[in-house]
Amino acid sequence: MSLNKQVKIILVETTNSGNIGSALRAMKTMNFSRLCLVKPKEFPSDAVETMAANAKDLIKNIEVVDSLDEALKNINFVVGTSSRMRKVPWPNETLQNASPNIIIEAKKKSKVAILFGREDRGLTNEELQRCNLHLHIPANIDYPVLNLSMAVQVVCYQLYVDEIINREPNKSEFWDVPTAESNHVKRLINHFIEVSEQLEVFNKGNPRQIGARIKRMFTRIGLDEMEVNFMRGFLAAVEKKLKDK
Amino acid sequence: MSLNKQVKIILVETTNSGNIGSALRAMKTMNFSRLCLVKPKEFPSDAVETMAANAKDLIKNIEVVDSLDEALKNINFVVGTSSRMRKVPWPNETLQNASPNIIIEAKKKSKVAILFGREDRGLTNEELQRCNLHLHIPANIDYPVLNLSMAVQVVCYQLYVDEIINREPNKSEFWDVPTAESNHVKRLINHFIEVSEQLEVFNKGNPRQIGARIKRMFTRIGLDEMEVNFMRGFLAAVEKKLKDK
Repeated sequence: MSLNKQVKIILVETTNSGNIGSALRAMKTMNFSRLCLVKPKEFPSDAVETMAANAKDLIKNIEVVDSLDEALKNINFVVGTSSRMRKVPWPNETLQNASPNIIIEAKKKSKVAILFGREDRGLTNEELQRCNLHLHIPANIDYPVLNLSMAVQVVCYQLYVDEIINREPNKSEFWDVPTAESNHVKRLINHFIEVSEQLEVFNKGNPRQIGARIKRMFTRIGLDEMEVNFMRGFLAAVEKKLKDK
Repeated sequence: MSLNKQVKIILVETTNSGNIGSALRAMKTMNFSRLCLVKPKEFPSDAVETMAANAKDLIKNIEVVDSLDEALKNINFVVGTSSRMRKVPWPNETLQNASPNIIIEAKKKSKVAILFGREDRGLTNEELQRCNLHLHIPANIDYPVLNLSMAVQVVCYQLYVDEIINREPNKSEFWDVPTAESNHVKRLINHFIEVSEQLEVFNKGNPRQIGARIKRMFTRIGLDEMEVNFMRGFLAAVEKKLKDK
């Protein structure tokens, strides 16, 4: 299932055409490409091109329509973004809660649309009433006003991450040198403690358990083989100097 | 614990001053207010005001400095944002995995800095080597290039959301000694390299970038103050023996 195939982003009556370009770029970074504009104030425009940066290739696919009805043709599941409380309360999920539900709909082969409103006053009540789900981006109560394209970026990010969360390894698995064997690390630690003793850097009685601290320091780091070898070479060089004395 | 109190956002050599304003607005929507600029191309500037929108009130608090060293004064835990793979790989966490660890550091009362690099080429290797943790925003492999202020928005969003969700911490919050200051770790690394040179343990020409590897080894571990002090004492003792010879 490709989320991009099922999900369309709709910007309603955008005033600042730079925001259209920024939104398109934001979408592309998260692997979305289907953008629809309802009555944009100015489109096409140079600002769209400029702000789209390397998402320029997607401009030609932008769908421009005159009404929300037209934009929602063939759409099964409509999501509205909103931060304002409405007179008639409507279930308004946080983005993190809404995102898995949107993905489930997409997996059910629903065509999904996510609506973003005007820069100054968002979506109208009538537009929000077309939406199956309202979502809001959790934000500072005193200033929850994300720029339009920022909101697109955050929503696309959350969807992208939730979709791939089981696919992408949690941290880069790539490392150029194998992790050192545990026994090699143990020998390094012993070697380090020996040299420390020869150097007389331990305080009398090790009041703060310096031995345990050294073990912890060298163990928690997860040393690789080259690092262990380097440290062993370093300690051997120190020892040699001590003997030469 | 207020995340905002502990966390500072640092933009390094930003070219487009509009991005500074956008980043500030993005921060404010997620309840962050501490912004530091390292050698911005143009600041103050009208574009900052325009793009900051209703985050204008925070412009007067922006810290402007000439070097990363200065920016990292009193910082304990440094996070670098990066999408590129490096020659010497470094643990690079996804934003979702890194975020709880950042929150844990903040809860330990560490001062945390999150670094964002230049628009065109991010952070340098040297800058990244100052970072305890590298994170990347999961993104489209074919076009992972988020606009700078978008990246700030997404990172702040994830931290904000994770802090309010009060997720299960994935490692123990208890540590008996404060995390070392970043500049102390830097001095330790320089000291270690100096002593290694005196000991002649470097191979000719450092064919496998041993300097970068040493930095990585001592930085990724997240040394605490006592460990740094002990290692400094150890190195001083080695130097003393070398001189006594």
